[in-house]
Amino acid sequence: MADIIYHPIGVIRSPFTDPQGMPIQPSSAAGARGYILLDDSYAAGLKDLDGFSHAILLYHFHKAKEVRMKVVPFLDQHERGVFATRAPCRPNPIGLSVVRLFSIEGTRIEIENIDVLDGTPLLDIKPYVPEFDTPAVCRIGWIEQSRHRAVLQKADGRFTDDKIGQ
Amino acid sequence: MADIIYHPIGVIRSPFTDPQGMPIQPSSAAGARGYILLDDSYAAGLKDLDGFSHAILLYHFHKAKEVRMKVVPFLDQHERGVFATRAPCRPNPIGLSVVRLFSIEGTRIEIENIDVLDGTPLLDIKPYVPEFDTPAVCRIGWIEQSRHRAVLQKADGRFTDDKIGQ
Repeated sequence: MADIIYHPIGVIRSPFTDPQGMPIQPSSAAGARGYILLDDSYAAGLKDLDGFSHAILLYHFHKAKEVRMKVVPFLDQHERGVFATRAPCRPNPIGLSVVRLFSIEGTRIEIENIDVLDGTPLLDIKPYVPEFDTPAVCRIGWIEQSRHRAVLQKADGRFTDDKIGQ
Repeated sequence: MADIIYHPIGVIRSPFTDPQGMPIQPSSAAGARGYILLDDSYAAGLKDLDGFSHAILLYHFHKAKEVRMKVVPFLDQHERGVFATRAPCRPNPIGLSVVRLFSIEGTRIEIENIDVLDGTPLLDIKPYVPEFDTPAVCRIGWIEQSRHRAVLQKADGRFTDDKIGQ
């Protein structure tokens, strides 16, 4: 199938410059502050976003290593299919995080509960809308046993290059 | 910034072959059945996904027209910044839908509450996990007044080409 070409619309700045020890999900990054620097050419697209308390960020896992179909997630000791995990080593390494919007000034967006590596290329910002994004019921498979561990669990660099910031 | 190149991992089949009249969100596509045909080379990545009741699909809005920074959303009569909407005319036209997983047989995944156009290229499948994806509180800006209308609102083709299926 044909290539799909995207371009970063900005960059995410976070306190996490080392993939080892960073939080693995926003729920374990509670309170971690960061910001988005959006490219100036997209400034007009931010109108009305300040009415929303939360946004969905889509970004490129720029430090992801090779694609793997089976992974041992941070939360687990068993090998799982990559599409049953949030690991970065996916065929298209797109990351998704729901973050709290703190303030928007020009093209700088202050965010909370950010769980991504500093310098991560941003692909999209969408408003979080419970009616669209929160299903009424769900089963969560293998994560059921470990869901509460995510709050404390930190990454150990298994999915990213050891050297970052290059 | 450098190009980011992705490749479809499969295709989404849905009952919606015409952008006019299709549901605009999964909440207005309740009960609509469709399926994913994943490329065979990714079959191993589906292991364990059947334990989850819901998944997040990321896909390419392949019929999106030009990029626009201001749009009048289907739910509204006012012009909004594109990043405060879910409209397809975004700089990187990536769509996101939370769908119910119905069954997985081989590389065919039956899904419910599907709100995308038939033939949409799939980019990623992620398990939906409330701890990661459901913030505790939120404000939803301009959508507050119209959130319940989404259930009935249908698309009118304003964001897509008139001719599809080409």
